Amino acid sequence: MNMFQPIFDVRDLRGGISSLPIANEPIFDVAHLAHVELLTPDLEGTLCFFKDLLGLEETERSARSVYLRGYEEQYHHSLKVTAAASAGLGHIAWRTRSPQALQRRVAAIEETGLGRGWSKGDAGHGRAYQFETPEGHRMELFWEVDYVTPPAGKETLLRNRPQKRPAIGVPVRRIDHVNLFAAKREGIRDFLVDLLGFRERERVVEEDGSILASFLSVTNLSHDIAMVPEGTKMRGRLHHVCFHYTSVQHVFDIAELAREADLKVEFGPGRHGIGGATFVYILEPGGNRIELMGDPGYMIFDPAWRTVVWQASEFPNAAAWTGAPPPDSFLTYGTPLAEEREAVPAAEPLVQA
Amino acid sequence: MNMFQPIFDVRDLRGGISSLPIANEPIFDVAHLAHVELLTPDLEGTLCFFKDLLGLEETERSARSVYLRGYEEQYHHSLKVTAAASAGLGHIAWRTRSPQALQRRVAAIEETGLGRGWSKGDAGHGRAYQFETPEGHRMELFWEVDYVTPPAGKETLLRNRPQKRPAIGVPVRRIDHVNLFAAKREGIRDFLVDLLGFRERERVVEEDGSILASFLSVTNLSHDIAMVPEGTKMRGRLHHVCFHYTSVQHVFDIAELAREADLKVEFGPGRHGIGGATFVYILEPGGNRIELMGDPGYMIFDPAWRTVVWQASEFPNAAAWTGAPPPDSFLTYGTPLAEEREAVPAAEPLVQA
Amino acid sequence: MNMFQPIFDVRDLRGGISSLPIANEPIFDVAHLAHVELLTPDLEGTLCFFKDLLGLEETERSARSVYLRGYEEQYHHSLKVTAAASAGLGHIAWRTRSPQALQRRVAAIEETGLGRGWSKGDAGHGRAYQFETPEGHRMELFWEVDYVTPPAGKETLLRNRPQKRPAIGVPVRRIDHVNLFAAKREGIRDFLVDLLGFRERERVVEEDGSILASFLSVTNLSHDIAMVPEGTKMRGRLHHVCFHYTSVQHVFDIAELAREADLKVEFGPGRHGIGGATFVYILEPGGNRIELMGDPGYMIFDPAWRTVVWQASEFPNAAAWTGAPPPDSFLTYGTPLAEEREAVPAAEPLVQA
Amino acid sequence: MNMFQPIFDVRDLRGGISSLPIANEPIFDVAHLAHVELLTPDLEGTLCFFKDLLGLEETERSARSVYLRGYEEQYHHSLKVTAAASAGLGHIAWRTRSPQALQRRVAAIEETGLGRGWSKGDAGHGRAYQFETPEGHRMELFWEVDYVTPPAGKETLLRNRPQKRPAIGVPVRRIDHVNLFAAKREGIRDFLVDLLGFRERERVVEEDGSILASFLSVTNLSHDIAMVPEGTKMRGRLHHVCFHYTSVQHVFDIAELAREADLKVEFGPGRHGIGGATFVYILEPGGNRIELMGDPGYMIFDPAWRTVVWQASEFPNAAAWTGAPPPDSFLTYGTPLAEEREAVPAAEPLVQA
Repeated sequence: MNMFQPIFDVRDLRGGISSLPIANEPIFDVAHLAHVELLTPDLEGTLCFFKDLLGLEETERSARSVYLRGYEEQYHHSLKVTAAASAGLGHIAWRTRSPQALQRRVAAIEETGLGRGWSKGDAGHGRAYQFETPEGHRMELFWEVDYVTPPAGKETLLRNRPQKRPAIGVPVRRIDHVNLFAAKREGIRDFLVDLLGFRERERVVEEDGSILASFLSVTNLSHDIAMVPEGTKMRGRLHHVCFHYTSVQHVFDIAELAREADLKVEFGPGRHGIGGATFVYILEPGGNRIELMGDPGYMIFDPAWRTVVWQASEFPNAAAWTGAPPPDSFLTYGTPLAEEREAVPAAEPLVQA
Repeated sequence: MNMFQPIFDVRDLRGGISSLPIANEPIFDVAHLAHVELLTPDLEGTLCFFKDLLGLEETERSARSVYLRGYEEQYHHSLKVTAAASAGLGHIAWRTRSPQALQRRVAAIEETGLGRGWSKGDAGHGRAYQFETPEGHRMELFWEVDYVTPPAGKETLLRNRPQKRPAIGVPVRRIDHVNLFAAKREGIRDFLVDLLGFRERERVVEEDGSILASFLSVTNLSHDIAMVPEGTKMRGRLHHVCFHYTSVQHVFDIAELAREADLKVEFGPGRHGIGGATFVYILEPGGNRIELMGDPGYMIFDPAWRTVVWQASEFPNAAAWTGAPPPDSFLTYGTPLAEEREAVPAAEPLVQA
Repeated sequence: MNMFQPIFDVRDLRGGISSLPIANEPIFDVAHLAHVELLTPDLEGTLCFFKDLLGLEETERSARSVYLRGYEEQYHHSLKVTAAASAGLGHIAWRTRSPQALQRRVAAIEETGLGRGWSKGDAGHGRAYQFETPEGHRMELFWEVDYVTPPAGKETLLRNRPQKRPAIGVPVRRIDHVNLFAAKREGIRDFLVDLLGFRERERVVEEDGSILASFLSVTNLSHDIAMVPEGTKMRGRLHHVCFHYTSVQHVFDIAELAREADLKVEFGPGRHGIGGATFVYILEPGGNRIELMGDPGYMIFDPAWRTVVWQASEFPNAAAWTGAPPPDSFLTYGTPLAEEREAVPAAEPLVQA
Repeated sequence: MNMFQPIFDVRDLRGGISSLPIANEPIFDVAHLAHVELLTPDLEGTLCFFKDLLGLEETERSARSVYLRGYEEQYHHSLKVTAAASAGLGHIAWRTRSPQALQRRVAAIEETGLGRGWSKGDAGHGRAYQFETPEGHRMELFWEVDYVTPPAGKETLLRNRPQKRPAIGVPVRRIDHVNLFAAKREGIRDFLVDLLGFRERERVVEEDGSILASFLSVTNLSHDIAMVPEGTKMRGRLHHVCFHYTSVQHVFDIAELAREADLKVEFGPGRHGIGGATFVYILEPGGNRIELMGDPGYMIFDPAWRTVVWQASEFPNAAAWTGAPPPDSFLTYGTPLAEEREAVPAAEPLVQA
């Protein structure tokens, strides 16, 4: 029987096996998505959504911002919600794998001119190196982080969990990934791959081979970050942030609670082709699109994973392997809204390291 | 508000942050669990279980062995089933992250004296370095692997999947982890950590601090491998191999099919404390214990994860956070059976590299 | 606290409580939907769908027809599939609650002129009284039925189940309901209520109060039968037949298998407003629309249930409380296809009782 | 092919088909389980369980009692919780199918001497006829009932639901059934069948044919009420009350919340053989055993259903088709506790009709 042919020849790797120099080995310096900052013009509504429907715990609050995390998350926060004139992305924070890894990545970014310098840190983590993607999305890298101790009365017997599971809403377990609008996907994809060590797991291409959408990760998840086409002249816009459940039943449960709360359930429930997770997309009261996923879809353990390529004509299957295709709004709606011309808030003053 | 105290001080890391030399960074050389070889005295029954109930695909067959994989797995096989006088573990294979990583790990193992040398490979993968754990479990490391192309008639439109989802049994998606009996858990734990780069994610300890059970991974899964106490004088025994589903509904579905097939459903359905996955344990017709898990439980992205420690007195919660505690057999039954005195089959002749 | 007002005054019942004569009590003569006959121009494809994907068991086969049932169904069959030039509905069979109940219903139908007389029965059941709805859908009532004994090798230890659960496809448990096109919904609704004792559970009405859709049952299910608008001059067309699962996970599983089998998944997964069940609609190879539901939605135990009324403007919520609204085809596609002008096959010769 | 033999000969019915007199037709006078009254020595704790974990809505409160219902229930209440010295059953209320049905059942009960007379009703329903089972469990029958209007701010767009789905705990949809201890199961079984029109759906028998447990319903559910052996000299004790979810995922979710709330999860999650529902049993803070079921198991539509008979030796399968067998406490623990000798509270004064 010879029905299986290798579809991947390890000799295709640059340099060949025997001669592959260590310098060509992958970068493992970025560990994972640590937190996202969302801007909202309706702080109270947004908090109500994340706390009462998604069961996020508030760990700290400052004048303009509230810090939240899922009940299985150990860091100080995975979501920072900040009052602002417009909805949108504040910043995305990645934790490195070690202090040295942080130094290496900072050195690499500084060469690109996209670095913005060191902040002195924020509630819950130490100093962070801030930079922008070529598309203007603010990001930061850090190493030092604060862990939570259980809030009083929320101690659990489950020793791998920082607190009891909340008895409110349909509580998410953790943040999963972020999806951004980008005018030039090749540029931001290359930035993430070359500078931060992301691997491109899947992409959707036009007939001419140009990238319509790209999905990348540094973890075993199918994507920690993704980019879709920006159709306006705006930069740095957010498509969505995703949080994680255990099962598709939870996806249906939260979709129903969202309906009952008069929130817009924009797309789903369904099952993505790309990544394979079951999903639903809801607009939170501040206007940001939030994805809730029911299981992690497939995971990627193969260290030589070859990027899965979808043609643009296959987009319906890629977007919804089961369930209705996405509505038009899914391809265009983002935050800040295209009508809004307000700038995102000025960055906090930076402390140069 | 000061209710959160950091429970982890990064300065506790050996050497401190600023002075941590690169040489002290983690080993990332082992990528994941690639396949397991199971021995069975009832080859036909064992194949019926894996193919007709778990929906594994057969990719190749030799005189004594059959090679199988889940419908979301891209490698040639994740399970090799080999006819033998007794049930038990054949070997466990890990894929490295690169050819260089393989060379580094081999060099490290060879210093321990536990290395057995290079095999010329097997169906589906290139040459592999074989060795034994301090407890006598056979393992191997390899880099070169064959990928599958879809069997004729099983091509799918889902481009990240190598073939259609089977319409048989309750098909598993992929292999998840392996669990071994070990007389001295510290020894094998240290071997995995120091030589192969595993991180210990959770452990159960006796009052004196000695290790009752240990759970380790190189991936974002809570464990790729685990060890529990060996109560006999036998060495190298298998506790179980685990395969992965999407939801707890699948766990109930396969438990019911197993009942209908007159197989022993030993433990579960339930939800583990350790790892947090929903589970059921079934004895396959050859006698090996197989776990089916419904979701991945929690995942670990924190690069400085501190091992979760359970006291032996907390074992019931650790074993079953929801559901009945494990039956006594779960603590003692393994393969080969304790009564059996037959040796595992002689290793294949090795080709020294 | 007085926030709850009765929304139903029992004195509204015709005649009032104390004077309500026994003759005004509900009719309990029809017990449930016993089976449906589907016509198919692709007998082999249709059987493959029902047997290999839905796990129905074949109990008997005649020259043109095959008799099938779910693994939790005790009667000889709940589905009869008959080869024909066009897809569509053969007939719908209801079992009465007793022999006397059968006699009473037959007497009532005979007065309407819609009766067609007694058949001598069919494989699996005794003589049946055949009739047509005012819209030309063929129905029958019967009392005597054959029960199955487990097929050899399929005996189960589960004493309330006639056989083992199949290890194939995503097996349905039982038939659930049928949905018909009708030009005049009031007429067929009144026929079912007045002659057969159905209760109207929900309805969708136009602004002028005329019925757009009606959902009725004789059981505790929210509907055993439903009617939607016929937009062509054809009569007796089928909208869909529904089969039942346990959970929404199964709905996603079968949707995926249908995608892999190149079948059209027309609508869903989602959750209906009306009835509240999770669902997916698939076109079987013969062209008939089949619904698979994941849980029974809400059940009705109230003997004085007041029909739930939706305005036509609320149809999107009524059709899909969660999930995308139905595609246009859902409102128009039926079997036989609107293009087809072929008559359904001539009725079998009847034996007058 | 003749592999199917009828296992039920309709001519076995008393009198035969043709001569069966109308008087021998089944009684349809009792419609369903309307509500249960639970006694609790810890009113606050019990309310916390039902409101904060099970999401029941409070509709009214009196000096000693609180009235609750599930979010899909239309009546004033399905659960009345009453402060008392001991946990246990207050009473069980059945709604009849019509006012006449109520009169017929009262007349039948009065002949037995087990009637206690008419109460003037309670919050949420009109006058009720009270009686005791031969085992001393208090029951009542009524017809007039109050329906809820949605609490202010809880109005929903889902027209078949009286209010929004709660965003708290894991909210149950409705009450399902009640299970009682009985010294003589034949006696109470016959009482329910002959006087109230229940059908016995399943039973477990000793070797001598005597009844160990019996499961009966008037609805399409597999049981509305069940009886298990009373091993003490006490009478009228409660085994459990069951509430209903949609899926086994909810069963796991509530089991976890119960663990987090330091409640005893006594048995499950698992799947019953009898009835076929997925389940978990939790002791509420007042001490009463509460079952949560994830799907309705199989339903019974057959009007000539033959009682499923399990031998006592098959009890493990009957109790848990999947999952661990019940712990010993499941067979003996009930409320009031066996140690308690306190009488249930004196019945309210009755108003003779």
